Amino acid sequence: MAVTETTVKDACAAAKHAAVDLARADTTTKDRALERIAELLEERTDEIGEANAADLADERAQGLSTALRDRLTLTAERIAGIADGVRAVLALSDPVGELIEERTLDSGLELRKLRVPLGVVAVVYEARPNVTIDCAALCIKSGNAIVLRGSSYAQRSNAALAGIVAEGLEAAGLPADGVQLIAGGREDLAELATQEGVVDLVIPRGGEGLKDALKAVATVPVMYAAAGNCHVYVHSDADLEMARQVAYNAKVDRPGVCNSAETLLVNADVAAKLLPKLLGELHGAGVELVGDERARSVAGATPVGEASDSDWDTEYLDLKMVVGVVDSLDEAVEHVNRHGTGHSEAIITSSGDSADAFTGGVDAAAVYVNASTRFTDGFVFGMGAEIGNSTQKLHARGPIGMRELTTTKYVLTGNGQVR
Amino acid sequence: MAVTETTVKDACAAAKHAAVDLARADTTTKDRALERIAELLEERTDEIGEANAADLADERAQGLSTALRDRLTLTAERIAGIADGVRAVLALSDPVGELIEERTLDSGLELRKLRVPLGVVAVVYEARPNVTIDCAALCIKSGNAIVLRGSSYAQRSNAALAGIVAEGLEAAGLPADGVQLIAGGREDLAELATQEGVVDLVIPRGGEGLKDALKAVATVPVMYAAAGNCHVYVHSDADLEMARQVAYNAKVDRPGVCNSAETLLVNADVAAKLLPKLLGELHGAGVELVGDERARSVAGATPVGEASDSDWDTEYLDLKMVVGVVDSLDEAVEHVNRHGTGHSEAIITSSGDSADAFTGGVDAAAVYVNASTRFTDGFVFGMGAEIGNSTQKLHARGPIGMRELTTTKYVLTGNGQVR
Repeated sequence: MAVTETTVKDACAAAKHAAVDLARADTTTKDRALERIAELLEERTDEIGEANAADLADERAQGLSTALRDRLTLTAERIAGIADGVRAVLALSDPVGELIEERTLDSGLELRKLRVPLGVVAVVYEARPNVTIDCAALCIKSGNAIVLRGSSYAQRSNAALAGIVAEGLEAAGLPADGVQLIAGGREDLAELATQEGVVDLVIPRGGEGLKDALKAVATVPVMYAAAGNCHVYVHSDADLEMARQVAYNAKVDRPGVCNSAETLLVNADVAAKLLPKLLGELHGAGVELVGDERARSVAGATPVGEASDSDWDTEYLDLKMVVGVVDSLDEAVEHVNRHGTGHSEAIITSSGDSADAFTGGVDAAAVYVNASTRFTDGFVFGMGAEIGNSTQKLHARGPIGMRELTTTKYVLTGNGQVR
Repeated sequence: MAVTETTVKDACAAAKHAAVDLARADTTTKDRALERIAELLEERTDEIGEANAADLADERAQGLSTALRDRLTLTAERIAGIADGVRAVLALSDPVGELIEERTLDSGLELRKLRVPLGVVAVVYEARPNVTIDCAALCIKSGNAIVLRGSSYAQRSNAALAGIVAEGLEAAGLPADGVQLIAGGREDLAELATQEGVVDLVIPRGGEGLKDALKAVATVPVMYAAAGNCHVYVHSDADLEMARQVAYNAKVDRPGVCNSAETLLVNADVAAKLLPKLLGELHGAGVELVGDERARSVAGATPVGEASDSDWDTEYLDLKMVVGVVDSLDEAVEHVNRHGTGHSEAIITSSGDSADAFTGGVDAAAVYVNASTRFTDGFVFGMGAEIGNSTQKLHARGPIGMRELTTTKYVLTGNGQVR
């Protein structure tokens, strides 16, 4: 059986129907499907490679940048890596059926609060065919049907991969309709995002343009992956050697990801001691620096440009950093809450009280004491594979793992209770 | 200090500022504010009564129906009841600070997942001044600032009550700005529902018109309280005496609330045995009955009208019920999932397997085995006061209690960890 692109409404309805069986499936059955998907990825590496080559050869793909072509490319090694990822999800514990609460009500009713799948999860993504399998694996293990809306650039690759998912489901006795691949137009996006009562959640994996497009039309719930305007604040009592290492790492390690730092805030008491060396090192690593008046005045030989108002609100995602001097921890907290995006924030301090004041005062998904912001990640947090990182406060805050693809159900058992 | 109606944007900004202190407040402080609010309600009963009398005497209120006037009315007894409600919330355990998870990561980082307040919660409600205090109490105990957007019909009553909340906050050393009262126009609603990054959650407490108005404009998260098209399904192996009592109770006890049953489904094997007596009793209680062909054919002397397609999808909220006969449990599950609103669903059966098939297959917030749907309620579930009942799947499903007014924060403590 082949996954064919069909109308959005029909695809979602088919997924909804399949979701009932997926929700009831036991762990062994779901694991069997995942193992078969991993095997098929290995068995059909050549076939997937051919589909991918056709996508890359398509005239539409000719205009893509080197970076985007690289993300679209599936090598044998990458396909093997995707299969490994499926087995890693297989090895995670099944969240479905978890008994969250249990009590006997006054009436004698036995109340249980159970973890259950959401139902139908839709993922909207760009020309990265690996996402097809990564997200399908997480959805299957968590008992959800999945609707994949990939990019038209990756059409042939996605069709080959989604076909493997469908075959894996069937091999385990699960409905192949549990995976659906739909076309990539803007109209399709609007139709997908308005399937109320059918699609339970849409997850966009892409840039701000995609998020804005969804915000404008969505009536079904959407979990927005986060922008990260992250800060490192160095308090007056910080170990300055530690501060230097953490700030450097938070900026330089991988500047293009959302948990890297964009702003460095330094307490006035230690600015003159810390900044000359630290800014020199950042500059040496190729970081473009801008700063406020006081930061610039202690920068020594390092060139630090004048920060504009917008710098404090910018997620550079690049080797650029804005540096500011503050007079107190309270001022740092206020700055972070005003300019931050609620992703990951760090303080360097040697005092427990200061740490508590910062972690208590800062309104963010993850707050670090004496560590780099770079640790915010589902794998690192011990949650297994992640599907994104949420800066929303409802449902999921921080890494979105498999458990965040579930909801709860109250089951109440009685012997004829009435009110 | 008096709560004055101010512009929506300013009110929300002031609440956001106050939210930082409310989030940090310990349980004792929050309880002191609540106790003072309860005392002030008692001390100022006459004053509140006068404000309420002025609202009722206003020419705008003259056109209200008896029921709506009744909901707007505050008697001394009702004010005492509201004060009792505040003390009941005071007695609930504080959800803030709960340690949800704790582990050491490979890097040595100590990860803690803590429960924290949402920040600013806005409640949009109709001319029911008691909601002003009920919701403020829940928000204060859970460390949230609250923005109240009441009805203009209750303007004077709400101002008196919100003033008491502000005074109670101040008496405990908390910022009076933690409670904000805004005016009741449609433009204000749109402004409130688009305060991204300031208002963390909007909860509408009102009818479908209000929900639709919010859906059209909201860009901040909204938690929609539920419509309840609830079913009772009587399986072939049910204790028919129990079935009769449960179905009767689910319909007749309080037909105007969302957890009452609207549809009765009966397995064909027991329809002829159960329905004549049960339908007679429902008819005797004043219930208007409609049904499908098979239900009508076994109704005996009881008048049962012909059900139209729309009956299966209607939340009557009244003494009316639609009755259908199904051939199997699977058919019942399919019917419930197609027509239900995911609120509360019940099966009457003597078999554990059938119970499991129903509770596993039905996609709803609460699923009952051998009990009335009428139990879905925050108080009954042991969660304390509720602010509504959610049929959404994200964040909160079922009764929305104090814990549902919180989010989580990861706090990670290290000694210089970098990646």
